[in-house]
Amino acid sequence: MIMTAKEMRAKRRKLVADWEALMRTFIKPENEATKTILLKYMEPILFGLHSFLNKHVGITEEVSIKELADQYKNSRINPYPEKKLADVITDLIENIAPHAVNIASPYFVGHMTSAIPFFMVHLKTITAALNQNVVKLETSKVVSVVEKQVLAKIHRLIYRKDDPFYEEHIQNPDTTLGCFTDGGTLANTTAMWVARNAAMPKTAGFKGIESEGLAAAYRYYGLERCVILVSRLGHYSLSKACGLLGIGNENLIPIDVDNRNKINIKQLRQIIRQLEKEKDRTKIMAVVGIAGTTETGNIDPLRELADICAEKKIHYHVDAAWGGPTLMSDKYAHLLDGIKYADSVTIDGHKQFYMPMTCGMVYFKDPHRMDHIAYHARYVNRPGSVDLGIKSLSGSREANSLILDSTLKIMGSKGFALLINHGIETAREFAKEIKKRPLFQLISPPELNILTYRICPEYLQKQFPAANQAEKNEINETMNYINQNIQRCQREAGKSFVSRTTLQLKRLFNRDIVVFRCVIMNPMTDKKILNDILDEQEEIFNYHFQDILLMGSGRLKLTAK
Amino acid sequence: MIMTAKEMRAKRRKLVADWEALMRTFIKPENEATKTILLKYMEPILFGLHSFLNKHVGITEEVSIKELADQYKNSRINPYPEKKLADVITDLIENIAPHAVNIASPYFVGHMTSAIPFFMVHLKTITAALNQNVVKLETSKVVSVVEKQVLAKIHRLIYRKDDPFYEEHIQNPDTTLGCFTDGGTLANTTAMWVARNAAMPKTAGFKGIESEGLAAAYRYYGLERCVILVSRLGHYSLSKACGLLGIGNENLIPIDVDNRNKINIKQLRQIIRQLEKEKDRTKIMAVVGIAGTTETGNIDPLRELADICAEKKIHYHVDAAWGGPTLMSDKYAHLLDGIKYADSVTIDGHKQFYMPMTCGMVYFKDPHRMDHIAYHARYVNRPGSVDLGIKSLSGSREANSLILDSTLKIMGSKGFALLINHGIETAREFAKEIKKRPLFQLISPPELNILTYRICPEYLQKQFPAANQAEKNEINETMNYINQNIQRCQREAGKSFVSRTTLQLKRLFNRDIVVFRCVIMNPMTDKKILNDILDEQEEIFNYHFQDILLMGSGRLKLTAK
Repeated sequence: MIMTAKEMRAKRRKLVADWEALMRTFIKPENEATKTILLKYMEPILFGLHSFLNKHVGITEEVSIKELADQYKNSRINPYPEKKLADVITDLIENIAPHAVNIASPYFVGHMTSAIPFFMVHLKTITAALNQNVVKLETSKVVSVVEKQVLAKIHRLIYRKDDPFYEEHIQNPDTTLGCFTDGGTLANTTAMWVARNAAMPKTAGFKGIESEGLAAAYRYYGLERCVILVSRLGHYSLSKACGLLGIGNENLIPIDVDNRNKINIKQLRQIIRQLEKEKDRTKIMAVVGIAGTTETGNIDPLRELADICAEKKIHYHVDAAWGGPTLMSDKYAHLLDGIKYADSVTIDGHKQFYMPMTCGMVYFKDPHRMDHIAYHARYVNRPGSVDLGIKSLSGSREANSLILDSTLKIMGSKGFALLINHGIETAREFAKEIKKRPLFQLISPPELNILTYRICPEYLQKQFPAANQAEKNEINETMNYINQNIQRCQREAGKSFVSRTTLQLKRLFNRDIVVFRCVIMNPMTDKKILNDILDEQEEIFNYHFQDILLMGSGRLKLTAK
Repeated sequence: MIMTAKEMRAKRRKLVADWEALMRTFIKPENEATKTILLKYMEPILFGLHSFLNKHVGITEEVSIKELADQYKNSRINPYPEKKLADVITDLIENIAPHAVNIASPYFVGHMTSAIPFFMVHLKTITAALNQNVVKLETSKVVSVVEKQVLAKIHRLIYRKDDPFYEEHIQNPDTTLGCFTDGGTLANTTAMWVARNAAMPKTAGFKGIESEGLAAAYRYYGLERCVILVSRLGHYSLSKACGLLGIGNENLIPIDVDNRNKINIKQLRQIIRQLEKEKDRTKIMAVVGIAGTTETGNIDPLRELADICAEKKIHYHVDAAWGGPTLMSDKYAHLLDGIKYADSVTIDGHKQFYMPMTCGMVYFKDPHRMDHIAYHARYVNRPGSVDLGIKSLSGSREANSLILDSTLKIMGSKGFALLINHGIETAREFAKEIKKRPLFQLISPPELNILTYRICPEYLQKQFPAANQAEKNEINETMNYINQNIQRCQREAGKSFVSRTTLQLKRLFNRDIVVFRCVIMNPMTDKKILNDILDEQEEIFNYHFQDILLMGSGRLKLTAK
């Protein structure tokens, strides 16, 4: 039966939220029928949206972003309710979810976003239902206390101070072991904010950079610039933080990496020595060590960096957004040896703590370090109060600490260790498989659970060392083109997803090269699945791209002899 | 039966997360019994944690924060799982929730955190289950498209541009109508970040402040400082933003407010004129208008501010974190008249859009304005991509847009209008009631749904105008003491919560005075409840504090004649 426009309007009118309907949504579902529908949908969400999605779609359905975009072009808020709650939920499950990305698939190994334990959804639900605001005690009470406790637990994981230290600080309203942020970017930003203010502190004659500003601070201290040193593989949030904080992101000085993607310590020392010569105008504000580079998962020599920073009295930050939870693995914690000397450390909750989007954290060795960024207001965050908003980049905040605290209790550190070990060890096996296959070239072997590789036939790999510069360039340009497109084809096919990035491996290849980047954090991702992914890439290559090599310029031996 | 230590260790051991147990948590609950327990707890959470809490506790249970803190002092992560999932959830419901704050109570009228419609919990659950990361298309796909659409909807609510404008920009990957942030603080910060960079733009000779830094920008433009102008009632996040961005928070220049807590336009013009005299060294970076001051809910004359900013070519930001959704009320939208001229606007989702913690948004009139803060990386956010992370303070982000989009569909703007109108009109009735009671003094009448008042017996109010300065001070000091303590007593009694703040009403009272601050956003909060709250305050006064007036210094007539 087709409705007339008038009937449709009439039907829509019925959905007008009158006062009674509104009151009901603040206390209970509209009626028993709705409740049944809601429970029907909540069950698959709570107990396996993963498998629900797996049954229906692969990584994502084959609809182009262009086609999708065309369906979402109405810019008006409807004055009347468009849909009942149950219909909105149906819509989310049936029309949105299949076109979202099934990041929970074990074939999704492209980014640092992966499957989460199903109970995370429960914990997030409870947190949302309580809807506490951790900015102040008056809207959170016990949750602020829990937050201080869980911050101490992770602080202890990193810094391993003794019992009296934690006894003193764990619930101390005047000191701060760390802070939750909405993600790693803001955690790094908070660390750099604190480091900036600490580098140009208040004195009798200077009210502090937070008050007088950066230019006044430079004038007072006779400086022209501050710089931050980090390897070329530093996360782009550090660059953003430098821009935001007024340092200027060209003052984030990139240090080369060695063959293992670790910061070149010799070059770092050399640059510090150079900068010391212009000490009267340049301040080294921080050195950043990386514990798990975003692109390759490598860890800088954290202890050597600590020694340099201690010697030169520089704020030492470790970006362990990715690698931090490795500290829970007895087997691999040693990879982060030296992290406890860091003045500040970033760890992400939504990465290897397997929490839902999003949760970042930043920790400080000195419980008074965050005093450099304390803010008060007349109605909250009064001096001396337990309000957690006093030292925090954000204002209102949800209680992510409840989720992390519960998760630690459910998993135990040994539960997390199983996940960490699986990732590292599966990555190692995958690297062996890549080396075995003549079509593939391993670019960065895994130190943690990330590796990069590319398609590059063995005969080209063998010709490479003896080739002249023009030939090398042609090989790499061609392979870049091919790898970029294979990655796209595989993504669009929708079964598997490996990401790609461009590594600046100048020393090895004399130019930037495009690589596949594989991140193994889903415990369901195993050897068989990874082999499937390689098989698919091989198939795409054979079907679509082999010919490109055959059509080589002639100057080169791009085809097998 | 009491277990021995050995038995307890053995029992705990059983909870070791072995590989199989771990795999199960990634796909389905441990067993059918657990599933039943989970559903048992999920039902009250999904269908009325509010009433569940109401049955068990008032605003919060009577346990002091000190006692609570003592229970949360263990700083060690347990290597083994401490508790099963079901026990952790039981713990959250039975031991955490009762000591959290029942912000959903209609007696909780103290902060901008209140009851949310029950369906918000469902929407948050679905968002968590999908766990999309909106920083990039590869981990969000359709959700990025939905986000762009809902940003356009709110943009249109504010700016009311025409169809061709939205047709062009709604799904345009190269332009940006706004951005989600984790809250209003970061929304204001983003707006000031953009304003700062736009104030000192790139030129042929200057790579831009983001690249070269603030000090270099000042040197290039021959400046000594940037300033931002806002009324004294501006949110403290603006001060924080100035500190963070390197402007220095003493360069946030507070302008006095008039009797109605609105920015004193005359004084603003005067200060701008003064600053123009030092144009060669001072740049006015932005003027901020407030649409709903945090403490009193008042709205600055947004159109007059727009005229000044247009005339002087200053970035005009409106902080509508609180008042923004008033635009959905046909009856009261006119209060925000002029907002459409703002270069940028902040609105909070977790305030009057009634979303769960936390969701902020910032909008820009010019879809290219956010280009000033674009960032790229090699593996995400490539130029030309649809990745929403290119122009965003945060990196990884959860899909709050899905919640807002669904909510707009369920409620319609008229549904929201009911809530807005209820808040404003209930506040007006409450103001009348306060005026009627001789013990109370209305300090700021409601313009939106916030008002402030204090306890101050009528006879003192009458004596006040004729009193000399010392007498006035004594009256106010005494009343400040009394009001501060009544607020504390009421909060600790746990039935109701009204917040307090200190208003700088120099013109009226010659000093800062402590007031109760009442925020009416819960649709269940009605006249009767508000009367109960006044009754309780009156009771506390009569019981505990009346004597203080009797014990007055003698110089004053602090007692009734």
